[in-house]
Amino acid sequence: MTTEAAGTESPSALEFLVLAKDCVSRPVLGDITGRWGTLVLLALREDSLRFSEIRRHIEGINEKALSQSLRALERDGFVERHAEEGFPVRVEYNLTELGATITDRLQTLVDELYSFMPDVLTAQSDYDRKHPAI
Amino acid sequence: MTTEAAGTESPSALEFLVLAKDCVSRPVLGDITGRWGTLVLLALREDSLRFSEIRRHIEGINEKALSQSLRALERDGFVERHAEEGFPVRVEYNLTELGATITDRLQTLVDELYSFMPDVLTAQSDYDRKHPAI
Repeated sequence: MTTEAAGTESPSALEFLVLAKDCVSRPVLGDITGRWGTLVLLALREDSLRFSEIRRHIEGINEKALSQSLRALERDGFVERHAEEGFPVRVEYNLTELGATITDRLQTLVDELYSFMPDVLTAQSDYDRKHPAI
Repeated sequence: MTTEAAGTESPSALEFLVLAKDCVSRPVLGDITGRWGTLVLLALREDSLRFSEIRRHIEGINEKALSQSLRALERDGFVERHAEEGFPVRVEYNLTELGATITDRLQTLVDELYSFMPDVLTAQSDYDRKHPAI
């Protein structure tokens, strides 16, 4: 729950609480789950990819959103950016060990979501029938 | 990967792909992971709560964001809204079975994130030192 965690030597996991507004863990949760974060991590799960390849993997993401998301994930230590020698310079992104662990959890969540989707679609139809748009 | 899943009788989990722009699973992933979705689900994990109680649990959420998030999660079948008899009417929100399962996964993810936070904070400091703000 602490905002001072950043200043201490080795904060314990107990000091964090995403429900607390100023906890440093909340923006990190946002980075990995926000509008694009999860999709970027999932796209990098199998292989390291170039920027343009990630864009192709994630339909509908624009350049700015992808570059912001990659920067945030790199800053958090979940993604690494490698610039290989050569011309033109080849830049690739890959998951770090931390990033891979988090991404495995996200994949589990997404796989579970897929298995629930039939129920979700039924719930959505029921809801929409009961709450018709005006 | 299909957008027609909603129209079929019992779509299999294999038909969904969050990386595909029009897949019906992508907005649902957004509902459970988006800016507030995860926090709303986590807040409801222990107990059913009234609207004002959820607001107190999630520091910084405003009324509009909470009500949109609850509506989306209710529509997806993850949250139930109960209005109890009486005056004033007492409205409570609780997780459905589906919602509880998804929330358990989110809690696992968040617990893991807490354990990683010391490394994340170190990574952030390193990054900020290498990329000083202009």
